[in-house]
Amino acid sequence: MNTYGRTFRVHIFGESHGPMVGVTIDGCPAGISMKHADLLPDLERRKAGATGTTQRKETDEPEIVSGIFNEVTTGAPITILFRNADTRSADYESIRNTPRPGHADFVLHKKYDGYNDYRGGGYSSGRLTVALVAAGVIAKKVLNEITIQATLTEAGGNTNIDAAIEAAVTDQDSIGGIVSCVVRNIPVGWGEPFFDSAESVISHAVFAVPAIKGIEFGSGFGAAKMKGSVHNDAIMNESGTTQTNNAGGINGGITNGNELYFRVAVKPTSSTPRQQQTWNNVTASVEAFAIMGRHDLCIALRVPVVIEAATAIALADLKLMAGK
Amino acid sequence: MNTYGRTFRVHIFGESHGPMVGVTIDGCPAGISMKHADLLPDLERRKAGATGTTQRKETDEPEIVSGIFNEVTTGAPITILFRNADTRSADYESIRNTPRPGHADFVLHKKYDGYNDYRGGGYSSGRLTVALVAAGVIAKKVLNEITIQATLTEAGGNTNIDAAIEAAVTDQDSIGGIVSCVVRNIPVGWGEPFFDSAESVISHAVFAVPAIKGIEFGSGFGAAKMKGSVHNDAIMNESGTTQTNNAGGINGGITNGNELYFRVAVKPTSSTPRQQQTWNNVTASVEAFAIMGRHDLCIALRVPVVIEAATAIALADLKLMAGK
Amino acid sequence: MNTYGRTFRVHIFGESHGPMVGVTIDGCPAGISMKHADLLPDLERRKAGATGTTQRKETDEPEIVSGIFNEVTTGAPITILFRNADTRSADYESIRNTPRPGHADFVLHKKYDGYNDYRGGGYSSGRLTVALVAAGVIAKKVLNEITIQATLTEAGGNTNIDAAIEAAVTDQDSIGGIVSCVVRNIPVGWGEPFFDSAESVISHAVFAVPAIKGIEFGSGFGAAKMKGSVHNDAIMNESGTTQTNNAGGINGGITNGNELYFRVAVKPTSSTPRQQQTWNNVTASVEAFAIMGRHDLCIALRVPVVIEAATAIALADLKLMAGK
Amino acid sequence: MNTYGRTFRVHIFGESHGPMVGVTIDGCPAGISMKHADLLPDLERRKAGATGTTQRKETDEPEIVSGIFNEVTTGAPITILFRNADTRSADYESIRNTPRPGHADFVLHKKYDGYNDYRGGGYSSGRLTVALVAAGVIAKKVLNEITIQATLTEAGGNTNIDAAIEAAVTDQDSIGGIVSCVVRNIPVGWGEPFFDSAESVISHAVFAVPAIKGIEFGSGFGAAKMKGSVHNDAIMNESGTTQTNNAGGINGGITNGNELYFRVAVKPTSSTPRQQQTWNNVTASVEAFAIMGRHDLCIALRVPVVIEAATAIALADLKLMAGK
Repeated sequence: MNTYGRTFRVHIFGESHGPMVGVTIDGCPAGISMKHADLLPDLERRKAGATGTTQRKETDEPEIVSGIFNEVTTGAPITILFRNADTRSADYESIRNTPRPGHADFVLHKKYDGYNDYRGGGYSSGRLTVALVAAGVIAKKVLNEITIQATLTEAGGNTNIDAAIEAAVTDQDSIGGIVSCVVRNIPVGWGEPFFDSAESVISHAVFAVPAIKGIEFGSGFGAAKMKGSVHNDAIMNESGTTQTNNAGGINGGITNGNELYFRVAVKPTSSTPRQQQTWNNVTASVEAFAIMGRHDLCIALRVPVVIEAATAIALADLKLMAGK
Repeated sequence: MNTYGRTFRVHIFGESHGPMVGVTIDGCPAGISMKHADLLPDLERRKAGATGTTQRKETDEPEIVSGIFNEVTTGAPITILFRNADTRSADYESIRNTPRPGHADFVLHKKYDGYNDYRGGGYSSGRLTVALVAAGVIAKKVLNEITIQATLTEAGGNTNIDAAIEAAVTDQDSIGGIVSCVVRNIPVGWGEPFFDSAESVISHAVFAVPAIKGIEFGSGFGAAKMKGSVHNDAIMNESGTTQTNNAGGINGGITNGNELYFRVAVKPTSSTPRQQQTWNNVTASVEAFAIMGRHDLCIALRVPVVIEAATAIALADLKLMAGK
Repeated sequence: MNTYGRTFRVHIFGESHGPMVGVTIDGCPAGISMKHADLLPDLERRKAGATGTTQRKETDEPEIVSGIFNEVTTGAPITILFRNADTRSADYESIRNTPRPGHADFVLHKKYDGYNDYRGGGYSSGRLTVALVAAGVIAKKVLNEITIQATLTEAGGNTNIDAAIEAAVTDQDSIGGIVSCVVRNIPVGWGEPFFDSAESVISHAVFAVPAIKGIEFGSGFGAAKMKGSVHNDAIMNESGTTQTNNAGGINGGITNGNELYFRVAVKPTSSTPRQQQTWNNVTASVEAFAIMGRHDLCIALRVPVVIEAATAIALADLKLMAGK
Repeated sequence: MNTYGRTFRVHIFGESHGPMVGVTIDGCPAGISMKHADLLPDLERRKAGATGTTQRKETDEPEIVSGIFNEVTTGAPITILFRNADTRSADYESIRNTPRPGHADFVLHKKYDGYNDYRGGGYSSGRLTVALVAAGVIAKKVLNEITIQATLTEAGGNTNIDAAIEAAVTDQDSIGGIVSCVVRNIPVGWGEPFFDSAESVISHAVFAVPAIKGIEFGSGFGAAKMKGSVHNDAIMNESGTTQTNNAGGINGGITNGNELYFRVAVKPTSSTPRQQQTWNNVTASVEAFAIMGRHDLCIALRVPVVIEAATAIALADLKLMAGK
């Protein structure tokens, strides 16, 4: 099931070392202005290039092939393609016998009986997030005046991100981080009491982003240590504005009109330059090995725009489900 | 959308102060032994009664009305009903004008244009979790040899739970907690690379449980501070057993055969005995008020079996989707 | 998958000889007036009693147990139950070894590995259509000013229905019929170009009604013999009113604002009083046998209100999907 | 909702006069042999070229861009693209003001508030069926030994198809037809008792094919005139082989192991060369006009392989849902 959404539905396809990756968005309303150039800023934010990111360089040039006519959405499915150019498949032959720790090599091989495209992670590659980001741009258009802002607020346990990256480069070991996300101007009433709580649908989308291992809304894990009289957010007016925001903008699974706020944990990039140990299927023994290929030392640097995209996709679906 | 699952589908219905609550499970395979008595142990674990839990006492007697014949599942939808008995609706008249902080009173009123059954939270009540627990028992049967064990490992910031409850009673203020959940004997290969990652589907179900505000898999938020060389779990044999389990049993969204492990944050019960402030729609001003009704001082005490149920439901669906 | 609908979702459960059958409707908007008495007229139309219908008499008293508060829908799932009273399970012991021709006995036994509740067809019984009819009443409320009218226009090949029934009684053999359905005041624009064409979603719901074996929209099978210049409906004004209605109100899968019109074929009741032949699993030979139990000689008499319900359910879902 | 299927899911996209059309298939099992050449025979059957078909010539060269690696399915989403080449968009300017009778011009304009790509029907074009046929080839692979055979058995009311086409050419008026479809080697037990009956899911897919206006299973509309003792198919052995096949291989919504058989009605091509009448939005009057562009005189000639594809897609989904 590689589809997300009930009304605003996103499908992604392609492999890291195939000819292209792409996304189809079904259920986007007609009449939304959508220019080619509108896609570029978020795609640019996701690109590698900064210190601590991979040397694989893709142009990430989006090709809109359906669903947009005269720079306006038509109501038909929107498909956007991205050609893969800078691939080096030979780098990946070895992983067939020595599954990389932290990566999905082992589980993909088992799940698909060895038929998966193993080159660069195949369909499971972070490369696919370029398609998520494109879908996120469309979703943000659907959300209109609602703003979503995700920021890397901590890397390698350090809130000074530059220093954290510098240390990782010196150390030649990958690091993770914390991304904080805030959504403003969201109306009251999105989300359902139980199975489609706002937390349920947002976390469902967010955990689709590779490397995410935790999410907390509002005070989150901190709330578990608080007293009710402190945690409860006093309601101050008829619009429901609260004095504090420990709930992160969600009560009983439903948005309450205050800022929706959550934090996600990004694990360290699995591809660390350090030597590691893994099982070798040929020699049938545990062996030391080193990762080849080009990788991000701190993938968390590129995650914020992807979290924004996942959040936008989830909220666009909630908006269309709410029908108001 | 009050339904969970693609193949093993769970629907819950009823209100806190209506005649009954219930659950329909569609997609459960035929031929699974299912006695009335099998439902009782988990229902018992969810019941109030201990210090720190509500004085509302429901018998929680399950009435199986379809889908089971001669104590075996038939393949038809399974419906189980629970009568409500000990309701005191008069307690709730006041909340129509003074929405309780931390509760869904305000958002439900807005979402449903004032037509929601406001008595005791209506459909949004924790009372509905009795239906979740019943569905969880069926799901556990589907999962067969897989075991799911959730435990309250911290309450009010204290790992000594008895002491934490005692302090809350003395303090007359509600507290939250941390529930840890471990799943054993789970096969390799459940979950999908992106939108239906194991983390996505489990978190979707878990955030359907009232009061949950955070979830982390494996090292979770701790992973954000670790280095890749430390976080990566070395693969030790051809079955994929890992030396450590920082991944919590999931790589790339897919179960890896090691223990699946996650922790959830439970916020303090919104209904604290302490005086609070909220908006009064009649007087159009912020006023102090005190919660009426009977409530849990530490709802986290009753949460573990509900987390087990949500997890079992999510995993039963993954199992049937995997088809093996 | 015993659920219909994407936004207006209907789940039915129960067995012919179990304690009750019921329906849960999820996704019904809040604020719709819904009295107990509103359910009765359509339930009455479905009841047996007339010449040619079964002698099993059920009161079909609906018990609304959730989702309606103060006679208005709340937005929460609506569940309605119907107790079974007049069951004679002993009548059905024999079918375990001699599957009845035309019935689902054989396929149910195989599909569910023998675990199905075989009494009176179990979950597959026409008894479940009482739940469909109840859901249809809710759906009609959602559709508001749109009217749906289904009529038995032919029975046993005869357009004089009374005469057809009389002949069947004399002949002591069951008969089928044709039900015509017309929907008025439907807006332009419901349905999707391909997979969720109006014909697709209506036929999906209609073929859920037992005994239906064909459906045609507008001129239907007659269209296959017509010329394009005759079949095309000339558009006469800016509202899209057409001179003829060979399309049955649907172009390219989308409603065009004219009357939506279709006809369905109802096969003869499988339970004919006549002697038949079937395989006997015990004697391992083909044997003559006669149906026991109480049955409708012409089930088509009771089908129109069920077709209206199926149509209303499909259209209510299209309406909520259209969002306007 | 431009997606079909619960487990084997098909998404189509593109427009008649856009750069390409395509299909993504999600949920196809890994390990199925799938060569580029395997797509060609069915694509060839769908092509124009014969007398009575359009002069628009597309190469229909499939470009497999994901989900297949080393000529085997990987378990990841399969995407196949088809470039559009022979488009003449100028032909379609006039339809913006004079909606063509029988076509979707009017309803698309209303549904999408005028934002639809109107060129050649845009997303609603029969051009999209090339994507359906490609998905059908994959579905047939999933179905393995099950064979699906659709045939044009009647055109313009004549069972001599060549004569029917000749008459249509002479007459310069479009015609429709009847397509019969038979499925062999299908196991017992596919389909669900109510909402996902085999008839429901097949008809849902079949009515996604443009120009289809009716479907009947087994004796279909003929059954409405038969007596029960004649219509019932006597069961002759323990495998469930029946003496007759009036049920068309489906009892109670579930396949019974006999040949699955159905017929569909194809309406005459809406684009007839004959002069017609329609509303002109500019002159605000009914006017005579003639269709421009290149069209099929008898689209039914090209329909059988598309019906096979729709059927294969529906059955592949039922197979994967059945899990056996």
